[in-house]
Amino acid sequence: MTFIRRVLAEFLGTFWLTFGGCGAAVISAAYPQLGIGFIGVAFAFGLTVLTGVYAVGNISGGHFNPAVTVGLWVGGRFSTLYVLPYIVVQVLGAVAAAAILKIVAEGQPDFVLGRFASNGYGDLSPGHYTLLSAAIIEPILAFFFLFVIMGATSPSAPAGFAGLAIGLALTLIHLISIPITNTSVNPARSTGPALFAGAEYVKQLWFFWAAPIGGAVIAGLVGRLLYREPH
Amino acid sequence: MTFIRRVLAEFLGTFWLTFGGCGAAVISAAYPQLGIGFIGVAFAFGLTVLTGVYAVGNISGGHFNPAVTVGLWVGGRFSTLYVLPYIVVQVLGAVAAAAILKIVAEGQPDFVLGRFASNGYGDLSPGHYTLLSAAIIEPILAFFFLFVIMGATSPSAPAGFAGLAIGLALTLIHLISIPITNTSVNPARSTGPALFAGAEYVKQLWFFWAAPIGGAVIAGLVGRLLYREPH
Amino acid sequence: MTFIRRVLAEFLGTFWLTFGGCGAAVISAAYPQLGIGFIGVAFAFGLTVLTGVYAVGNISGGHFNPAVTVGLWVGGRFSTLYVLPYIVVQVLGAVAAAAILKIVAEGQPDFVLGRFASNGYGDLSPGHYTLLSAAIIEPILAFFFLFVIMGATSPSAPAGFAGLAIGLALTLIHLISIPITNTSVNPARSTGPALFAGAEYVKQLWFFWAAPIGGAVIAGLVGRLLYREPH
Amino acid sequence: MTFIRRVLAEFLGTFWLTFGGCGAAVISAAYPQLGIGFIGVAFAFGLTVLTGVYAVGNISGGHFNPAVTVGLWVGGRFSTLYVLPYIVVQVLGAVAAAAILKIVAEGQPDFVLGRFASNGYGDLSPGHYTLLSAAIIEPILAFFFLFVIMGATSPSAPAGFAGLAIGLALTLIHLISIPITNTSVNPARSTGPALFAGAEYVKQLWFFWAAPIGGAVIAGLVGRLLYREPH
Repeated sequence: MTFIRRVLAEFLGTFWLTFGGCGAAVISAAYPQLGIGFIGVAFAFGLTVLTGVYAVGNISGGHFNPAVTVGLWVGGRFSTLYVLPYIVVQVLGAVAAAAILKIVAEGQPDFVLGRFASNGYGDLSPGHYTLLSAAIIEPILAFFFLFVIMGATSPSAPAGFAGLAIGLALTLIHLISIPITNTSVNPARSTGPALFAGAEYVKQLWFFWAAPIGGAVIAGLVGRLLYREPH
Repeated sequence: MTFIRRVLAEFLGTFWLTFGGCGAAVISAAYPQLGIGFIGVAFAFGLTVLTGVYAVGNISGGHFNPAVTVGLWVGGRFSTLYVLPYIVVQVLGAVAAAAILKIVAEGQPDFVLGRFASNGYGDLSPGHYTLLSAAIIEPILAFFFLFVIMGATSPSAPAGFAGLAIGLALTLIHLISIPITNTSVNPARSTGPALFAGAEYVKQLWFFWAAPIGGAVIAGLVGRLLYREPH
Repeated sequence: MTFIRRVLAEFLGTFWLTFGGCGAAVISAAYPQLGIGFIGVAFAFGLTVLTGVYAVGNISGGHFNPAVTVGLWVGGRFSTLYVLPYIVVQVLGAVAAAAILKIVAEGQPDFVLGRFASNGYGDLSPGHYTLLSAAIIEPILAFFFLFVIMGATSPSAPAGFAGLAIGLALTLIHLISIPITNTSVNPARSTGPALFAGAEYVKQLWFFWAAPIGGAVIAGLVGRLLYREPH
Repeated sequence: MTFIRRVLAEFLGTFWLTFGGCGAAVISAAYPQLGIGFIGVAFAFGLTVLTGVYAVGNISGGHFNPAVTVGLWVGGRFSTLYVLPYIVVQVLGAVAAAAILKIVAEGQPDFVLGRFASNGYGDLSPGHYTLLSAAIIEPILAFFFLFVIMGATSPSAPAGFAGLAIGLALTLIHLISIPITNTSVNPARSTGPALFAGAEYVKQLWFFWAAPIGGAVIAGLVGRLLYREPH
């Protein structure tokens, strides 16, 4: 039962992250005059995680992101047995969210699929940033995301505030980097919409698995040093 | 006395939600150059609930929403005896808020009533989304609203943070879906302004009762599974 | 010593509220292209109170507002002896803030004083709302501000969250009502800039003392009922 | 080991502050149509501190700012031995962040370095404010930043909320003052980008060391009075 509750929590949480964050981007960001812009999308992504962590943090840990799962595992904070099941249901949740979001979005008469909130670099970067820029920004932001997660959930941090800090860290990450890669730091979130946005986005998916997980692994290693209790 | 205090708290809280959220939409969203846009409206709705929960959460539970009341009842979190009284005063609070808001808004020389922050689908959707889009988005968002409410108020969640998570969940819900239905997830909030906006909005009210309550009922059932303590 | 620390805290807090909120309005709201708009001003006012309460809430209670002081006094939450000293230093703090803000703002080559963030109704309302609209909105918003303050600081509310709820309540209040009166709910904040903005704003100051205090007094009375512990 | 963990935490935290805050300004503020504007930059700076304090506040105190370090030292809250090491690594962190940010930003085809988020007064002020305006605003804002820090971390403040109050205080400070100096209150954050933006910005750096530290020192002295426990 614990297994089912945990993977169900991760499935729902990653669905919520992808549906809410990409949904805000696709439906509300560019609405004429009154649209929420990149700042609204940044808050939307952050609030999916903030609310998701308070909803199921005590059940599954509230990862909703394969890079988080791997980073915490490297950092010695997460059980090896659950790594693969978590990643599988995270991807399933993100794909399900993108599929339903597509149906909802197509209900607008003038809807054009476009990038459908997919991540990309080079020609597929919103601001046409190079692969080099993407290859620097994604690992750094994933590193600091894990840095906040590990710190805010360490035993010496004030209890209860982790969901606030982690969610708003994701908001901050989007405030910085939407123009570069449309902001991933989360391979599951990247995979969901890319499957519907077309082959050129799928071709870049390798990057949005490698770069966030790379940054997260380094954070896990640094976290082992930084958050070790002093002797 | 407890009964009076509880229904008074729900009346005031639902007044605040409708007056504050719809008021921000009607008065401030489209102000020339400096208007708050959909993102400001999203924060306004969320902050009515965040502040209302910290104000009276310990008196009434801070529902302010018939879908929340029904969902928590289905989830085994709320007493049957109070379901109907809560819904009645929630609707009364929302209608009173809309009535007073109309008087305030009419004090501007160029005021045009328009949709008066009412919810709608199809021709009455802000972005002209179909009934199908509305019929998917409203239950899903109400589902996740209850999911956050049930999780953040479960005994294993960190105490005190529920108001923050629940209020910001409503902000997130608005960041996603204002273009589709003007965002309801709350039949009382839908009923108040619709009574003043005209017959075509009243004709769609059935939907904004059925869809949020439908999503909330499913969340109540899932919540019984998810938040059951492990054996 | 306690007396000095308390009135110093109220002086500094009201200075901060007026300098920060009106400063954001005067300096940053209408900056070309990148200005923060009414939503930025709303967050600025709210964050002055949020940060001020966490800074000195345990010293002075963190009122920063004569309507709050009077409302809490009527509600039985505040000592009669301190009412007048608090109001005096609150006004002094707000006037000092406006004086210094004026010097700062005049350092821009093209600066025009204009309304200098003053409150007003009728011809002096940002959106030209009538006195009737102002006479409804200001007492209602002050009522709910006190309602949140009394609830969030009642013994049964979760400890520590009051500053968050109260600050964000002020943000919400501004999201609703800047177009109507430029948002007061605080006679001290109204008095500071009006003294520099010109005689027509000073002539309306009576209203921005009467209306917020009126709403706060009613909230104090309702709060006595609502937050009385059940027998 | 404690020494290394503390200076590593300050290095990473100041890197995060500069990379995140200046990164949002350089990359996302002025993006066509959907850019985050000054309000987004204000949230970005604030959230770097909010998240950084929850990540490493229990290791290093989470200063990320020489003015904070000096102010807390004057206020009797910080050990003399660590003052210089903290300031050194804070500057190193900010310079490293600016260097990497420059590489990332140059990955956009049309990138123009411009002010590169540097601080300035007079001709280098975003709104062409005079040195006098800058010489008033920077010490006042640094004063209140320390005021919030000292209050929110005093023993009588509610535990755990300091990171929230301090981070959002920095957001508020940016909401007020970006047009005047591009907002410093932090000599390390000023130093990083100025080294890359050109000699005229470097020539003004003395001011962005003197003014914030000046305000912080006064706050430290006032804090000794205000936060002394009553006898």
